[in-house]
Amino acid sequence: MLVEASRGGVVETRHRVHAAVVSPDGRLIARAGDPDFVTFWRSGAKPFQAMPLLLDGVIEHFAMTVPELALCCASHSSEPHQVQLVRDLLAKIGCTERDLLCGPHPPLSERVAQDYATRGVRLTPAYSNCSGKHAGMLALARHHGWPVERYTRGDHPVQQRCLSEVARWTATPESRIATAVDGCGVRTFAVPVRNMALAYAKLGKGEGGKGSGVVDAMVRFPELIAGEGRPCTDMMRAHPGRVVTKVGAAGVYCGLLTREGWGIALKVEDGNGPAAVLAMAATLAELGLRPQPAHLMSQPIPNTRGEPVGEMRVNGTLEREKNGA
Amino acid sequence: MLVEASRGGVVETRHRVHAAVVSPDGRLIARAGDPDFVTFWRSGAKPFQAMPLLLDGVIEHFAMTVPELALCCASHSSEPHQVQLVRDLLAKIGCTERDLLCGPHPPLSERVAQDYATRGVRLTPAYSNCSGKHAGMLALARHHGWPVERYTRGDHPVQQRCLSEVARWTATPESRIATAVDGCGVRTFAVPVRNMALAYAKLGKGEGGKGSGVVDAMVRFPELIAGEGRPCTDMMRAHPGRVVTKVGAAGVYCGLLTREGWGIALKVEDGNGPAAVLAMAATLAELGLRPQPAHLMSQPIPNTRGEPVGEMRVNGTLEREKNGA
Repeated sequence: MLVEASRGGVVETRHRVHAAVVSPDGRLIARAGDPDFVTFWRSGAKPFQAMPLLLDGVIEHFAMTVPELALCCASHSSEPHQVQLVRDLLAKIGCTERDLLCGPHPPLSERVAQDYATRGVRLTPAYSNCSGKHAGMLALARHHGWPVERYTRGDHPVQQRCLSEVARWTATPESRIATAVDGCGVRTFAVPVRNMALAYAKLGKGEGGKGSGVVDAMVRFPELIAGEGRPCTDMMRAHPGRVVTKVGAAGVYCGLLTREGWGIALKVEDGNGPAAVLAMAATLAELGLRPQPAHLMSQPIPNTRGEPVGEMRVNGTLEREKNGA
Repeated sequence: MLVEASRGGVVETRHRVHAAVVSPDGRLIARAGDPDFVTFWRSGAKPFQAMPLLLDGVIEHFAMTVPELALCCASHSSEPHQVQLVRDLLAKIGCTERDLLCGPHPPLSERVAQDYATRGVRLTPAYSNCSGKHAGMLALARHHGWPVERYTRGDHPVQQRCLSEVARWTATPESRIATAVDGCGVRTFAVPVRNMALAYAKLGKGEGGKGSGVVDAMVRFPELIAGEGRPCTDMMRAHPGRVVTKVGAAGVYCGLLTREGWGIALKVEDGNGPAAVLAMAATLAELGLRPQPAHLMSQPIPNTRGEPVGEMRVNGTLEREKNGA
């Protein structure tokens, strides 16, 4: 599977896609490129970094709401109500925005970014797309009585706890998971694309239903997982309850088909984000979730006058495995 | 040859490079990936789109200066003096900025872009990085008495004349050159990477020295070909007179080693610009132009707090051809 950008009908650039579709028992249903391609999970790991909130009793302890849990799994758009929800959660656990160690950045939504730039809104750590995840990590620390300082460091019990969940859901021993520092400062985990897909499959129908709380939060609040006009939100809204999707930085995209219980993970080898969106939408369409929103199936390439002079779209399909479904 | 971005020492994304190093008589000296990879030349074609200015007597007709010719070959940074030079050239040929059909865009130099944003400078077509090329095309039209209207259209004699030069220098019949609309609205040309390299080789030592005027302008005014702190300018300044380099959009980079007369062209398959810069600097270093500026040999990857958490650099080398030099 390639994502190709063409100009005047001639292909100009190519993005290679490595993808795996996996059942909860680990069968490879379909693939593209190399399903064993190892890369960092980035924000695709967020549902599993949020898992200790459910498993360790943090939700009950702090009476966390479903929208708050959804935000812990999100790469949100820094929309005002999303930022407010994060601040509410911080207050609830006895923390403030000063405890957040994620750096701020322009909102992932261009519309929101432009609005804040025009209005001169000062971007603080709560505006980070990862601020929900960080607030969840602080809640985990508070719950266990761990220090909230330095919660992003690899040797902090919060990060150790996240690693243990990543290892469990990906069925990969901790010792075989390489880690590095994510864009927001916490640990990120290198695993094969196939194992990312397995984790999402198990989220739906595996581990004795332990993933159901996360799935429920994500499908009920797609507008919190990304934001207005962003791909994860649009993909989940197009087929309500049928799919969970979660973008990761550097060309990662993951998902779960709730009915089939199939996990999906893909990586655009060169890390191109728009190509990953197109690859994910095409994959969902191929697996039966049709139609996908038209703006996720091809993207126009404009010149500096704004006239369309080319487009980016997927070329190729998944290869079905003979022993798959 | 790959350009790899790693995080915590683990490779996260990969960019494939197709490259050719060619002598003026067409011998392949070295390669990476597929030297016959066909793609759009984009701004790598500018020296050849400027060629009619020399060959048709436009320079003499309008008493064009060497800096003006250099700007016609440039993807400039929209620095104030560069924009002024373009306006001077337009005045000289009896045109105004209103004749320019290139759309404006934020300056390619981040420093200049930020400065203009802070000061609220209105970006007009003369600020396009291609405004020198467009002014040159208008000069060509004026010289020949062709209409200046619609000079960007494929059927306009200006674009036909450019196509004929591209065909000549790349040794590719016009009928075999696919065209499309470039980012700035004029025609762009799809040719194999190897033929792009051949054109640059001939620019130095071919076609009976017809390219010497362009080479002279580019090596004498590297600050006009890109701008302060931009890669083409830095590469040419690092080895004065020894090298011409010219970036193109979507991962294209071209160059000429003036002493050897070797042409170089490369394309990052996925169009990644920073990867193309690293690939070009590594290629120049490998071909003997050492040292290259350190910031062109590896690029740090920061997190949102600005701390370096990874780096991008070239992995691999050119393959020398047995029958090459």
